[in-house]
Amino acid sequence: MLLLAMARMKEPIIALLSDFGLKDPYVAEMKAVILSICPEARIIDVTHQVEKFNIRMGAFILASASQYFPKETIYVGVVDPGVGTKRRPIIVETSNSLYVGPDNGLLMMAAEKQGIKHVYEIRNKRYMLSKVSRTFHGRDIFAPAAAHLANGIPPKEFGPEIKDYIVPEYAKPIIEGDTVIGEVLHIDDFGNLITNISEANIAKVGLAEGDLIKLSFRDESFRLKICRAYGEVDTGEPLAIIGSHNFLEFSVNLGNAAEYFGLNVGDKLRLEKINS
Amino acid sequence: MLLLAMARMKEPIIALLSDFGLKDPYVAEMKAVILSICPEARIIDVTHQVEKFNIRMGAFILASASQYFPKETIYVGVVDPGVGTKRRPIIVETSNSLYVGPDNGLLMMAAEKQGIKHVYEIRNKRYMLSKVSRTFHGRDIFAPAAAHLANGIPPKEFGPEIKDYIVPEYAKPIIEGDTVIGEVLHIDDFGNLITNISEANIAKVGLAEGDLIKLSFRDESFRLKICRAYGEVDTGEPLAIIGSHNFLEFSVNLGNAAEYFGLNVGDKLRLEKINS
Amino acid sequence: MLLLAMARMKEPIIALLSDFGLKDPYVAEMKAVILSICPEARIIDVTHQVEKFNIRMGAFILASASQYFPKETIYVGVVDPGVGTKRRPIIVETSNSLYVGPDNGLLMMAAEKQGIKHVYEIRNKRYMLSKVSRTFHGRDIFAPAAAHLANGIPPKEFGPEIKDYIVPEYAKPIIEGDTVIGEVLHIDDFGNLITNISEANIAKVGLAEGDLIKLSFRDESFRLKICRAYGEVDTGEPLAIIGSHNFLEFSVNLGNAAEYFGLNVGDKLRLEKINS
Repeated sequence: MLLLAMARMKEPIIALLSDFGLKDPYVAEMKAVILSICPEARIIDVTHQVEKFNIRMGAFILASASQYFPKETIYVGVVDPGVGTKRRPIIVETSNSLYVGPDNGLLMMAAEKQGIKHVYEIRNKRYMLSKVSRTFHGRDIFAPAAAHLANGIPPKEFGPEIKDYIVPEYAKPIIEGDTVIGEVLHIDDFGNLITNISEANIAKVGLAEGDLIKLSFRDESFRLKICRAYGEVDTGEPLAIIGSHNFLEFSVNLGNAAEYFGLNVGDKLRLEKINS
Repeated sequence: MLLLAMARMKEPIIALLSDFGLKDPYVAEMKAVILSICPEARIIDVTHQVEKFNIRMGAFILASASQYFPKETIYVGVVDPGVGTKRRPIIVETSNSLYVGPDNGLLMMAAEKQGIKHVYEIRNKRYMLSKVSRTFHGRDIFAPAAAHLANGIPPKEFGPEIKDYIVPEYAKPIIEGDTVIGEVLHIDDFGNLITNISEANIAKVGLAEGDLIKLSFRDESFRLKICRAYGEVDTGEPLAIIGSHNFLEFSVNLGNAAEYFGLNVGDKLRLEKINS
Repeated sequence: MLLLAMARMKEPIIALLSDFGLKDPYVAEMKAVILSICPEARIIDVTHQVEKFNIRMGAFILASASQYFPKETIYVGVVDPGVGTKRRPIIVETSNSLYVGPDNGLLMMAAEKQGIKHVYEIRNKRYMLSKVSRTFHGRDIFAPAAAHLANGIPPKEFGPEIKDYIVPEYAKPIIEGDTVIGEVLHIDDFGNLITNISEANIAKVGLAEGDLIKLSFRDESFRLKICRAYGEVDTGEPLAIIGSHNFLEFSVNLGNAAEYFGLNVGDKLRLEKINS
């Protein structure tokens, strides 16, 4: 069992992710509720600019960030198009953290990396706001749950353990001979194209930094180098690089690769080694 | 008198709202000034993306969020097109909080909900930065005032009590027989249309969740259900719902209602029950 | 030597500036790394919306904001197009603060205002993450360095002192007789045009608040008053004003000066007194 679930931490960290954006009072209301229940909480924003209703993008960002937070961080994720329907509010206990949010897969890419131990449905009204709205469980259910967890209430107090929680399948790259077939997982704010092809995947087809590759999609193809720095190519020129989460990325030096290649999230890519 | 005004709190919460946006150093300078004066302050952003100069939108967001913050929170609101003119900087003391900002109505929707007890004009230069700029009282007057309040300086030390402060009239819905006439109060980042029609208002004309309504504006009209969840209608379909602040909202499941209906803030709406 | 470098502060302030934007996990990962190493750190965002790769805009914003932070604040600046190349990671010690970031000039406008005392190259792997990525030194080198500095590790422990760090030349206004020639330094989120012409510069040509000036650029010219408040002119009318950082700014009352004048960052301006 988690230490976290047994003793009140001194200054527990609560990390928030949502698709709420920053212009409305929604994020502030979640923070206000948390501080009302657990005044010592240190609240960190992961992001609130997940594309609206894009559970997969939220899952990817949460899984990326959660690798760097201290143990015992409590994460609250709210990309929740099913709010108010029968989708369940849950707490996920992993080997070193707790996740709070809807049972729609959002939390599970991150939780699986750490090892899921237990999943509980949040049912105990004692740990919700006295009036639960139809549309904002982030404030009325998830934020209070996180704050009560931070206060040392054990996850099992919130409701029954469940086994039939949703774990989505995340697209995995396919390796066929010397070719890797993957897809665009995420486009970051610089326009970098982050793929689902890991450093280990390209090693399997004999590729490493310094190599030349042929990148193909639709009816186009490009000859690119797997660089060690953006600055290895001229301004405006494209390149491949192992990104900061160990996935292969396509970038343009001082430019925007998404615009350069005309690619979107979910687009398929084909990668081959060029023997020079 | 407020406890807050008498004793230094351990970790006072200061909540900030402005129309400054996040690309410039303005918000950071306010936080830097606060921490220079009151290092223990916990600063929470309500939002800094109020539409430029839109006092009414700022007032609505502040009034929404302030219902969820702990008692004794100190709010700083800066939507301040009159900065540098004769408009006065004020402190508003309510039954459980303090508000700091310009005397232009921004603070009053929130303050009235809590009950206004006293309003003071900030005149005492001792509690301002040594040089007050022409254009940025958020940093030079309001932030220092909030930090000194957090340090336990009583509001009356900042200047004389005033009675002629500005309280704007906020549009109230009109009920005519079975019809409610209201308006769009706010469009959130999802495109949800938040109206000034409360749950109590629609109850007065016999409407409740599950009912069908006719929504009319300009020369258009729509048949909508008052749903309990967005997911009660198909993707892309419109609905009505009691939102998280107890106002009637118009939404589109997994879509953007502002675009769907072509409505803007301030547009008038007409609502009637459909007898099925 | 800095007190900061000798003793662990109670709640050290770490201020972050980058061009990362807020939709990706990058900023959160930096904060997560900082809190993992120095749990007491108080992290304040200066901004993460510096224009991509715009070192000069980042330098201006950091230099503006750092005037208002408490002494001993540790700044981390990451606008870093040369990440992964031979550009060095550095720590700059000034008379009252520490700056961490790339050796590309980003930190130096701020550091020079406070007086640069020593610059160290960060080489000691002990104070980096165990795996340093190609593309994200903000998380892997700069954030850990800042957190270790906050823990009291002296700057000289991070690597050798260097003397050949980069200090860019920042454009200075030229005064020719009664004319001041300057340029647009920054456009803020309101559309205000902040110039590199200081209050002292205009005083040299006999200009002060209340005076009328002729503003010329390209083949256009405008007659403007140096106002004490935006509200001195009618809605939609242009004006000049001494801004909150003591530079001359051009604004439009309740409007957007960048759109009104059609000016961009770097555009040259000519200013003359009009004798009325």
